Amino acid sequence: MMKREASSTGPEGALAATLYRGDSIENTHRAHAAVVDADGRLLYACGNPLRQTLARSAAKPAQALAIVETGALERFGFDEADLALMCASHSSEERHIERTRQMLAKVHANEADMRCGGHPPLSDAVYRAWIRRDFVPGAVCSNCSGKHVGMLAGAQAIGAAIRDYQLPDHPLQVRVKHTVADVCDLPDDGVQWAIDGCNLPTPAFPLDRLARLFAKLADAADATDASDLATASLSPRTAALARIYRAMTSYPELVAGEGRFCTVLMQAFAGGLVGKVGADASYAIGVRASAQTARLGARGALGIAVKVEDGNTTVLYAIVAELLAQLEPLETFRVPPMRNTMGIETGRLSVAVPLVAQQ
Amino acid sequence: MMKREASSTGPEGALAATLYRGDSIENTHRAHAAVVDADGRLLYACGNPLRQTLARSAAKPAQALAIVETGALERFGFDEADLALMCASHSSEERHIERTRQMLAKVHANEADMRCGGHPPLSDAVYRAWIRRDFVPGAVCSNCSGKHVGMLAGAQAIGAAIRDYQLPDHPLQVRVKHTVADVCDLPDDGVQWAIDGCNLPTPAFPLDRLARLFAKLADAADATDASDLATASLSPRTAALARIYRAMTSYPELVAGEGRFCTVLMQAFAGGLVGKVGADASYAIGVRASAQTARLGARGALGIAVKVEDGNTTVLYAIVAELLAQLEPLETFRVPPMRNTMGIETGRLSVAVPLVAQQ
Repeated sequence: MMKREASSTGPEGALAATLYRGDSIENTHRAHAAVVDADGRLLYACGNPLRQTLARSAAKPAQALAIVETGALERFGFDEADLALMCASHSSEERHIERTRQMLAKVHANEADMRCGGHPPLSDAVYRAWIRRDFVPGAVCSNCSGKHVGMLAGAQAIGAAIRDYQLPDHPLQVRVKHTVADVCDLPDDGVQWAIDGCNLPTPAFPLDRLARLFAKLADAADATDASDLATASLSPRTAALARIYRAMTSYPELVAGEGRFCTVLMQAFAGGLVGKVGADASYAIGVRASAQTARLGARGALGIAVKVEDGNTTVLYAIVAELLAQLEPLETFRVPPMRNTMGIETGRLSVAVPLVAQQ
Repeated sequence: MMKREASSTGPEGALAATLYRGDSIENTHRAHAAVVDADGRLLYACGNPLRQTLARSAAKPAQALAIVETGALERFGFDEADLALMCASHSSEERHIERTRQMLAKVHANEADMRCGGHPPLSDAVYRAWIRRDFVPGAVCSNCSGKHVGMLAGAQAIGAAIRDYQLPDHPLQVRVKHTVADVCDLPDDGVQWAIDGCNLPTPAFPLDRLARLFAKLADAADATDASDLATASLSPRTAALARIYRAMTSYPELVAGEGRFCTVLMQAFAGGLVGKVGADASYAIGVRASAQTARLGARGALGIAVKVEDGNTTVLYAIVAELLAQLEPLETFRVPPMRNTMGIETGRLSVAVPLVAQQ
């Protein structure tokens, strides 16, 4: 997939997807991609691999890392599935909401303590079910509910009040901000912060740093398997990253939901990679080291990050599937068939991500 | 709004909208625009004003023109509101579906003769109502139902079978294709045809030709008002275009629906302009001649056409509202407020369409 040749790549993104209707071009989409290894070396790029990117929910594993490092998991008895939900943008299915309630009970808090609002679910099936019974979603139904309960746990674990846990100056968020910058190999002021849809601070940093984060998750999983079962020889950071990798890949159905891209992707690769979407079309993947990643020039695990310049998520998934095509076919998302209301095929999405070798 | 200055405009579109979250750029969008007058002169442009564009439903007035010119309106007793629905991408509200049924009765046809399928409605309120009563939409609910009944009428008016009326080789579609090219001042082979979401042929032509079509609609309305009430001095083409203009502007609630952009826009301008959206973010407007259009350099009416390169309709409406800002404020669509699930303002959409004078 990755050739050393000239391309239409550039600072404003490279032309990565073209939607055809008949022989006419309907829409075009630009994208950026960065492929790094566990050492943080940029191996391949498309568009601007340093594009300052709001990673949104793709940054959840880094926020979860800050929670893990407070000791909150041990203190409140969270299991691996709970940790997966902390990293999730879930579909508000019953299993997600029910687990959120159980996690709230573990931290001796309730829904009114959560500072996210309800919203229409990411799953259309759930949306239809809610409408049928006139259900008004609350905070436990937020696709970010696991992250928020994690924050309630983290606040208590560091001895801070849970009140205002979502505000940028709260002691927990100060800690989260440092951890996110640190794991992305950036100084604290190397990350810009904004407010997310769920009301927590959300980071923006160069796209290759998102790829680094995910390379580190996969590399930590490799390191854990290579070391003693007790993982006594691993640093606490590596152990925490490996724990997050294992949680997300062991419970992919909790990270997203029925039929969703992240869930299908991680199930297809069966532990071989971790993937997470962010709103407005960012995506990050960590691939465990193999003969194939070595052939791509990686030392250790591989990290891939993608951002579609216009925020189109359907296009994002097609691009990610294209990037992964040589690892394993993901036909469902790779070429979304375009059919009209009578089932007639009317067009096709052409995806060609012009990755350019960097070294 | 339109200054003679350099801009970031170019063949792949000009940067026309930037979505900020906090101080970080979330997404950017490129767009094209063409502003012409009734003589077809290109007055202002943004991006590539000749971009080959699938106008989709923005071309409906041209398809309706072909129907009007068959004499079908007189033959089947269609009124002005029926003609408005032929030009509509409606919200599948009761009034739209009921009128479709009445129009079907007028042409002695029924729903089974329609070659469009049902689909989730463009209105979320209607969607929720359908889900609540497990309603499965049929062809009469298609947002293009009026156009399809118009085609059933047109086929009969020219003495053709109604069977297969939607196929490119059907005598009616051959006629529609010629009329669309002709009213856009193009030879028949100057238009590329594909299949639309509703299963009818859909044209692609340079963006400035879409602007011409709408300038002609507004210019015909001007000509009708200037002539005798009997419009005896007008050409049949001009009379037909004026009839379409009057239908769409007299019944804007039938052209789209409650709260929809086209409806709100035409209601706000109270007959002063006609506007129509096309799927995947094209828009066209015809503005009747005034001191203001003359100041912009137009001879007669003004035509405006816009295409967002990535097909984002929310961005399209913001851009169109920006273009019209000096004519009348349309705050609702102009700057969509971006708030999260707790109502906190998290960002803003910055729209700046770099129109460049062409003459």
